[in-house]
Amino acid sequence: MFEKILVAYDGSEHSKKALDVAIDLAKRYSSEVYVVEAVDETIFETVGVLPPLSAIEEMEKKAKKDIDEAVKKATQNGVKTVGEVLSGDPATAILEYANKNDIKLIIVGSRGLSRFKRILLGSVSSRVVQESKIPVMVVK
Amino acid sequence: MFEKILVAYDGSEHSKKALDVAIDLAKRYSSEVYVVEAVDETIFETVGVLPPLSAIEEMEKKAKKDIDEAVKKATQNGVKTVGEVLSGDPATAILEYANKNDIKLIIVGSRGLSRFKRILLGSVSSRVVQESKIPVMVVK
Repeated sequence: MFEKILVAYDGSEHSKKALDVAIDLAKRYSSEVYVVEAVDETIFETVGVLPPLSAIEEMEKKAKKDIDEAVKKATQNGVKTVGEVLSGDPATAILEYANKNDIKLIIVGSRGLSRFKRILLGSVSSRVVQESKIPVMVVK
Repeated sequence: MFEKILVAYDGSEHSKKALDVAIDLAKRYSSEVYVVEAVDETIFETVGVLPPLSAIEEMEKKAKKDIDEAVKKATQNGVKTVGEVLSGDPATAILEYANKNDIKLIIVGSRGLSRFKRILLGSVSSRVVQESKIPVMVVK
């Protein structure tokens, strides 16, 4: 049922919880786990400045480090794991990657935004939940 | 991890899928499954009419039948199952029931509303995802 599980990861506490759930499910379903983190250069566009190259490089370096750690953790738990740094708007990048790789379940952490922030900003997890064509688990 | 799984059920195709996922997870996690359906008399308030008693009775009868079928299916699959008809606004009723019964995972079906309807109406599943304090899986 869940042969391939994707985890949206960013090194935060909520995404670490999501990874733990993914590892646990993967053991019981003999799933492959795909850990992805999106580097979103478009955030610079929203504030109307050209991104300094060093800033993007820093983001990519940080994402690479997060993913390496996550892959290491899952692998140590005996789970076959693939890690990937994606580029672009996170929700879009995650959904495209899931589609391309025939993922059966997406797991995302919830940031626990306040009601105000949620209305104002939306969130990666709610967009993924709304737009995904496969099951999505939001870990709290 | 998922000792108690709640499924929001209403007899629809999407909720049948949610039940199937719950049964599969319950087998692997030795979970107890709680199948609930909320009878929402408040929908009559929104259109400004007093609900005819017979209409509420019909809704309750239908919910009872749905739940009985779901419990039967899960039980036949060897899963320990509790069924319950709740009363009131579905998202609120589900979240309160989950809290009271120490549920560890909520599974809801996605109705696949159009973008317009989603913005206008919201949906039970998105409210449950946003307001739940425990993991929620939205089955598509």
